[in-house]
Amino acid sequence: MSLTHFDKAGQAHMVDVSDKADTDRIAVASCVIRMLPDTLHLIESGTAKKGDVLGIARLAGIMGAKKTSDLIPLCHPLPITKVTVDLTPDATLPGVRIEATVKTTGKTGVEMEALTAASTAALTVYDMCKAVDRGMEISDLKVVLKDGGKSGRYEAKL
Amino acid sequence: MSLTHFDKAGQAHMVDVSDKADTDRIAVASCVIRMLPDTLHLIESGTAKKGDVLGIARLAGIMGAKKTSDLIPLCHPLPITKVTVDLTPDATLPGVRIEATVKTTGKTGVEMEALTAASTAALTVYDMCKAVDRGMEISDLKVVLKDGGKSGRYEAKL
Amino acid sequence: MSLTHFDKAGQAHMVDVSDKADTDRIAVASCVIRMLPDTLHLIESGTAKKGDVLGIARLAGIMGAKKTSDLIPLCHPLPITKVTVDLTPDATLPGVRIEATVKTTGKTGVEMEALTAASTAALTVYDMCKAVDRGMEISDLKVVLKDGGKSGRYEAKL
Amino acid sequence: MSLTHFDKAGQAHMVDVSDKADTDRIAVASCVIRMLPDTLHLIESGTAKKGDVLGIARLAGIMGAKKTSDLIPLCHPLPITKVTVDLTPDATLPGVRIEATVKTTGKTGVEMEALTAASTAALTVYDMCKAVDRGMEISDLKVVLKDGGKSGRYEAKL
Amino acid sequence: MSLTHFDKAGQAHMVDVSDKADTDRIAVASCVIRMLPDTLHLIESGTAKKGDVLGIARLAGIMGAKKTSDLIPLCHPLPITKVTVDLTPDATLPGVRIEATVKTTGKTGVEMEALTAASTAALTVYDMCKAVDRGMEISDLKVVLKDGGKSGRYEAKL
Amino acid sequence: MSLTHFDKAGQAHMVDVSDKADTDRIAVASCVIRMLPDTLHLIESGTAKKGDVLGIARLAGIMGAKKTSDLIPLCHPLPITKVTVDLTPDATLPGVRIEATVKTTGKTGVEMEALTAASTAALTVYDMCKAVDRGMEISDLKVVLKDGGKSGRYEAKL
Repeated sequence: MSLTHFDKAGQAHMVDVSDKADTDRIAVASCVIRMLPDTLHLIESGTAKKGDVLGIARLAGIMGAKKTSDLIPLCHPLPITKVTVDLTPDATLPGVRIEATVKTTGKTGVEMEALTAASTAALTVYDMCKAVDRGMEISDLKVVLKDGGKSGRYEAKL
Repeated sequence: MSLTHFDKAGQAHMVDVSDKADTDRIAVASCVIRMLPDTLHLIESGTAKKGDVLGIARLAGIMGAKKTSDLIPLCHPLPITKVTVDLTPDATLPGVRIEATVKTTGKTGVEMEALTAASTAALTVYDMCKAVDRGMEISDLKVVLKDGGKSGRYEAKL
Repeated sequence: MSLTHFDKAGQAHMVDVSDKADTDRIAVASCVIRMLPDTLHLIESGTAKKGDVLGIARLAGIMGAKKTSDLIPLCHPLPITKVTVDLTPDATLPGVRIEATVKTTGKTGVEMEALTAASTAALTVYDMCKAVDRGMEISDLKVVLKDGGKSGRYEAKL
Repeated sequence: MSLTHFDKAGQAHMVDVSDKADTDRIAVASCVIRMLPDTLHLIESGTAKKGDVLGIARLAGIMGAKKTSDLIPLCHPLPITKVTVDLTPDATLPGVRIEATVKTTGKTGVEMEALTAASTAALTVYDMCKAVDRGMEISDLKVVLKDGGKSGRYEAKL
Repeated sequence: MSLTHFDKAGQAHMVDVSDKADTDRIAVASCVIRMLPDTLHLIESGTAKKGDVLGIARLAGIMGAKKTSDLIPLCHPLPITKVTVDLTPDATLPGVRIEATVKTTGKTGVEMEALTAASTAALTVYDMCKAVDRGMEISDLKVVLKDGGKSGRYEAKL
Repeated sequence: MSLTHFDKAGQAHMVDVSDKADTDRIAVASCVIRMLPDTLHLIESGTAKKGDVLGIARLAGIMGAKKTSDLIPLCHPLPITKVTVDLTPDATLPGVRIEATVKTTGKTGVEMEALTAASTAALTVYDMCKAVDRGMEISDLKVVLKDGGKSGRYEAKL
């Protein structure tokens, strides 16, 4: 077992994917951001009329997906063909559940794009609410589903 | 209690900080990435000779801090004066503990820069190890310390 | 009368502002985007419940302001301290009026930032509505107000 | 009639183009920038020997086309295969006429790239001449031609 | 003989590659950075335990390759499929030999990506060692090999 | 003697410059690009009427200076206040001599910005002429002058 991002001498490189086929690929990542109940109330009321925290976080997540190969050093640039980011308030956390889905037709998978989208959306929620709640925490950021490509389908165990 | 990133009509804006003083500011953020014990062993052996996962993640985190205002829609651009990112293997997780410290002399705080540094470092660990462990999870991303500026010192409760 | 972005030999350069004082500066730019009446109806209904074209365009404008020195070759990078972008539906156009306000404390003015914010917001409206109306036009993009700095206050004649 | 950039719940997303064919696509966009007659004289003399405003604006437009998916939130990244930007002084405006042509082989059109190229070129003319003429205005920014892809050929009515 | 980046009127443009086939392409570029013997000793000892100058420069080179079309005005954006950057200490210089290899499947070559990777790696070595040796020089930056595409194989004469 | 970009444990970090004074700083860097005599003739004739290689390279160098902290991992972002890039054809090389000057008022020097400007200008010359001359070489990239800041004035020996 070894890490593909290193050659035999242990030097980092961007893995050669030249000979891989262009296939349809999808990845889904998710996370949660936990906050005070009052902060969640502010977000939920805001969506209706005072300021759309979730709409802005959704957009930041979508744009974040496009910056993935710029942020993650050994990530290949990919022509993303779809990004959605869903943010769902959940009083049981209390907080917001975030799920990002990314698709491409390309030579490598889009897990990193989905993770970056979810993470950027969560960070944007933090930014917009930090004036009233500094103790928010982002957790459970992980890949939920990955399909397409040679390594086959992966689904996280629930 | 209201969110400062919205005006009275609920429209998003970049908050006016023109009249704030330039003060020395610091923020510390942390997170963990949990993984299989074997993955952590690979990382730890790699640091010594086979490929430096933690060194690459550290660098990605430092560079990520510089991209914060590009990633987070309403974040002010800031002349960062220091970034450190520490990554510590921890067999009790098992996984890696990440802590990022950012300083500036400016009109707004650097929490978002510290959070973005920690988050980008964690995502980079995921990217480098995902070929052997897809189930890794990033959690507990939060602000640990913030100081400087009008709102005073904040320390997360442990 | 000569153009400051060229030296005596006619070579382009980024003008030396090292000896200028850091002063508070503001600029306001505006434009309109004209469209079919039905397109405007879609936007107005969307703002309420079906999809927030204006909210997304506002955010794109704010983020666009931060990219100004990357887009405009001889523009100085500046630490922006405020950006607002207002988008007002106007049935008499029919279309949307856009006004962007940018502030900084720095050595050069922020007209280009305000123009870029307004322009990016208008382009984003085009992008979001182009599937139903390809004939939209963006016009009257100009500086409305500029103040701060040695050259004094400028207001566009109405 | 609805806006494709929103799902049924009115949430913004980057439209799924995964199943679209890669076809040859072209788009042409144009705009004008109006100015004082003296400003136009400066530009025209400059092209010859004192400083090449139009050459710099052309380059800024070409580079701007490459930044489109970074500027426009829901725009897909595309491998552009050609960009030209033509800037023609026109004493009847007085000012400069700008036309940008962009081509790609891809799954979505390049209207936004052509509009962004024309707009960035016009903004750069403004930047380079603003020291002598703050009242310049950019107008008539629109798509002139679009072809390739499922929705067929579009030509603006003159 | 003429330069392809200009049209018949001498205006710069991004060359139309729409009709070129997508073929496998490779380019290798190299350079050296010369320094004081003591600086090279510091780098060599650092790689082992005190700070990994070469590892950081390698990563900067890889990331630099991804920024090529953003840096070089008329360069086409390309989906890079592989990047490696090798840095070899050489006491006979004294200094470091740098070689970058880039691959893609696309319509244009990747010489500029390989040159940018090598150059960025060298600049990063300079940055990390400049506190102890300001007189370092980067030289012999050139394309060593280029293959794929219509113009055939090119190898630099040694 | 040790490298400031590493802490005591040998971990890379962005050096803390918070306590440094904002002072006026300048750096000058230079390099050459050598080519076939015919290539130089093409460039020289082009400047006059067929296509302005040097003008485009100059602009690329200026814009490259603004991207320095994005390219060089541990470089601080700085508000550049001046950039000039001079390109002088020299038949004795044969080739082009490039010199870049950058100024700022800030806490760290601008050597890296000057080197990046010179390097990017040279790479752009390569890009524009590579169709007729693949054997061009960039050499002698170095800091010529640095002043301002605590470490005092540095001038390269000639």
